[in-house]
Amino acid sequence: MNKPSIPKGTRDFLPVEMVRRNYIFDTIKAVFKKYGFLPIETPAMEKLTTLTGKYGEEGDQLIFKILDRGEKLANRLESLKNPNQGEKNAEFLLCEQALRYDLTVPFARYVVQHQNEISFPFKRYQIQPVWRADRPQKGRYREFYQCDADVVGTDSILCEIEIVQMIDEILDLLRIEDFTIKLNNRKVLTGIAEVIGEKEKLLDITVALDKLDKIGEDGVVRELQLRGVSERSIELVKPLFSISGDASKRIEQISDILSKSPIGLKGVEEIRFIMDHIADLGLKKAKLEFDVTLARGLNYYTGAIFEVIANQASVGSICGGGRYDNLTGIFGLKDVSGVGISFGADRIYDVLTEMNLFPELEEETPQILFVNFGNEEATHCLKLLQKVRAQGINSELYPTAAKLKKQMNYADSKGFRYAALVGSDEINSGTIRIKEMTTGNQSEVSIDDLINLVRE
Amino acid sequence: MNKPSIPKGTRDFLPVEMVRRNYIFDTIKAVFKKYGFLPIETPAMEKLTTLTGKYGEEGDQLIFKILDRGEKLANRLESLKNPNQGEKNAEFLLCEQALRYDLTVPFARYVVQHQNEISFPFKRYQIQPVWRADRPQKGRYREFYQCDADVVGTDSILCEIEIVQMIDEILDLLRIEDFTIKLNNRKVLTGIAEVIGEKEKLLDITVALDKLDKIGEDGVVRELQLRGVSERSIELVKPLFSISGDASKRIEQISDILSKSPIGLKGVEEIRFIMDHIADLGLKKAKLEFDVTLARGLNYYTGAIFEVIANQASVGSICGGGRYDNLTGIFGLKDVSGVGISFGADRIYDVLTEMNLFPELEEETPQILFVNFGNEEATHCLKLLQKVRAQGINSELYPTAAKLKKQMNYADSKGFRYAALVGSDEINSGTIRIKEMTTGNQSEVSIDDLINLVRE
Repeated sequence: MNKPSIPKGTRDFLPVEMVRRNYIFDTIKAVFKKYGFLPIETPAMEKLTTLTGKYGEEGDQLIFKILDRGEKLANRLESLKNPNQGEKNAEFLLCEQALRYDLTVPFARYVVQHQNEISFPFKRYQIQPVWRADRPQKGRYREFYQCDADVVGTDSILCEIEIVQMIDEILDLLRIEDFTIKLNNRKVLTGIAEVIGEKEKLLDITVALDKLDKIGEDGVVRELQLRGVSERSIELVKPLFSISGDASKRIEQISDILSKSPIGLKGVEEIRFIMDHIADLGLKKAKLEFDVTLARGLNYYTGAIFEVIANQASVGSICGGGRYDNLTGIFGLKDVSGVGISFGADRIYDVLTEMNLFPELEEETPQILFVNFGNEEATHCLKLLQKVRAQGINSELYPTAAKLKKQMNYADSKGFRYAALVGSDEINSGTIRIKEMTTGNQSEVSIDDLINLVRE
Repeated sequence: MNKPSIPKGTRDFLPVEMVRRNYIFDTIKAVFKKYGFLPIETPAMEKLTTLTGKYGEEGDQLIFKILDRGEKLANRLESLKNPNQGEKNAEFLLCEQALRYDLTVPFARYVVQHQNEISFPFKRYQIQPVWRADRPQKGRYREFYQCDADVVGTDSILCEIEIVQMIDEILDLLRIEDFTIKLNNRKVLTGIAEVIGEKEKLLDITVALDKLDKIGEDGVVRELQLRGVSERSIELVKPLFSISGDASKRIEQISDILSKSPIGLKGVEEIRFIMDHIADLGLKKAKLEFDVTLARGLNYYTGAIFEVIANQASVGSICGGGRYDNLTGIFGLKDVSGVGISFGADRIYDVLTEMNLFPELEEETPQILFVNFGNEEATHCLKLLQKVRAQGINSELYPTAAKLKKQMNYADSKGFRYAALVGSDEINSGTIRIKEMTTGNQSEVSIDDLINLVRE
């Protein structure tokens, strides 16, 4: 028999990892709450129609689809036999449900579905796993947790400011010292497509620019060529690569480039609003940087876009988000603008591990292990155990009368503070012999003494 | 456009529901921890081979399978065209991964896979959703949370006692007054199959008996007939339906029936051990009842089996579990006995709702809503907001300068304690006008006063 294993790109979590993961989730959750966000959850499975078309063509391919069942499946398989039926779309024919790809689209669906149960502006947070059939690699998993906060029902740029503050506060609490919040605006990208005369190629330009970090300037140029952007237009794009200087200088340069595009200038104005307010309010640790090449691949963004990089770490972006003006429109509810941010808990975990930033985290330490000397003693210990547990003390009776050494090893490896040794002598005298695990010191105490000791 | 919706049998959770669900999870988690269980998590997706064959034939059909992708899928579809290829197994041919059906089998897989990273006996808890393509109905969902605690690496019946105590404590903390822990033992069922001369039909007898609650005695008899159990054997089964009296009387009756089956008597002995110890230790609220017709449909149980019913509620069992001696054996690790319990958080939610048992649960109440009177005021409020949030106070600035009434409605519906009104007068005087939302009382305070007020 082969050793059992789990699907590529997924992970098991040991108790020690759980404690660390919960530390990350709890930190994020506390800040979300403080900023007025309320928790919701949505199902792991969504209707496939809810998800397709929202993440670009590449994204659609990466959605995990759940096979239909029973009669429905039989009918679908039958129809696949029709030679006119292209098998290219088999995935979409055989499946009506799929695993969620992110939390934003399910949230938009949720807002429309529950519009009469919630009051706007609606601020929600959501911490759940998502699934993507991406090629697994360092920092990229097929199942990973997103921690999202979104405000919908207002187009106020004050929300963007709040998001920058939350990112700063969360990553500061997680003790990450050096990180950059990259900021751009889809309207700026639209403006660029406009002024270079490639309005219809906005999506292509977006996708290409988004890869600048990975494939460099030459790569982006090649990508633009491949996507049919004219050489003349590509020449017009190039000045973007050399935008530099501090925030106000960068904004000035892009304003010049976009001077003939009203939408582009509106985007610049939004960036300026955010940058100015944040400069005024100050940040704990974050560097906020306007990056005109930041594009983010997702179709649904229409305004500000964010991405956060831990500068000393090697895992790529740990947080991203942006404003979407039309996302709920796809589900039949128009004019509901929203903006949100998503923290990648798994990448943050990798950053904290890589940079050795986890604090000492003690899950409630197990306190007392009652050693098992046999049936009669165990029966007696069950009553003692009942008394200490009634005081909320995390404690156990070793389940069998194994050798003392084995039981002590167990107490050691699990981190118990005390071993309680109760043999026939102790039963007769109504006492408990305890051994302090770290020092090895032994003493004889009453049950009340033991409870007081642990509580000290 | 149709109103968007979610797959049948799945649910969205609103903030108010999340608070209640977290109350259940936190209560269960606290008791698990106190009894020495450590948290783990496993992926939502398992290899299909890990899951199939563990839940009986009916269970296998209810596993949600994830469609293969790309070339693999193309090849599989090709092979389906082969007319010799029965389409009955299409699901298994087109999929290599599936959503977990419970937490026990993934845990067994986990134990084998990580056997060198954990120390035995290993006590773990795990709170995660599972998925079953069951027909949705009251109290039965296609996505639901299980809260499991298991001990593996020991066959000590002391663990069963601990499980009974945990059930009692958890449901008592959740304020359920009237509930029964039903106890049986697979060895008893094996003994019954033996003494009625239908050893090979153990599984059929188990499945039939398991339905007694739903289909009654006549139904069970019909089910046994359908499953090919002889009339003579069925006559021998019937006395089981009339076992009655208190625990010791029931145990006596079944001992008589099983007097010629050593394995059956061993099962009775285990039941007696648990019942006697629990009688000695006492329970807070639970009634512990030996029920020879309790069978539980899952293939992997070999010893004690449990099921818990909230007697005043209408949702079926809220908790179940049992001992499995060979579960890790399937994955290549022999002689690792385990026993576990699974709480159905969703059914418990339904019970608490139906019986109106949820306490007043306050998520950290939002404290201060800063009213938005326009750009200049908002800019000023951002700084005040920064100060109160720095003190950990849950607060917000309304994102737009909407009508005062609208902003106040928002403060009301979200449950803010104070509205803070800062117009040009207040900016000039460096004060904040606050309105206490419940009383309507207004006063003018400094930022420090406000912080102190909230903290009181």
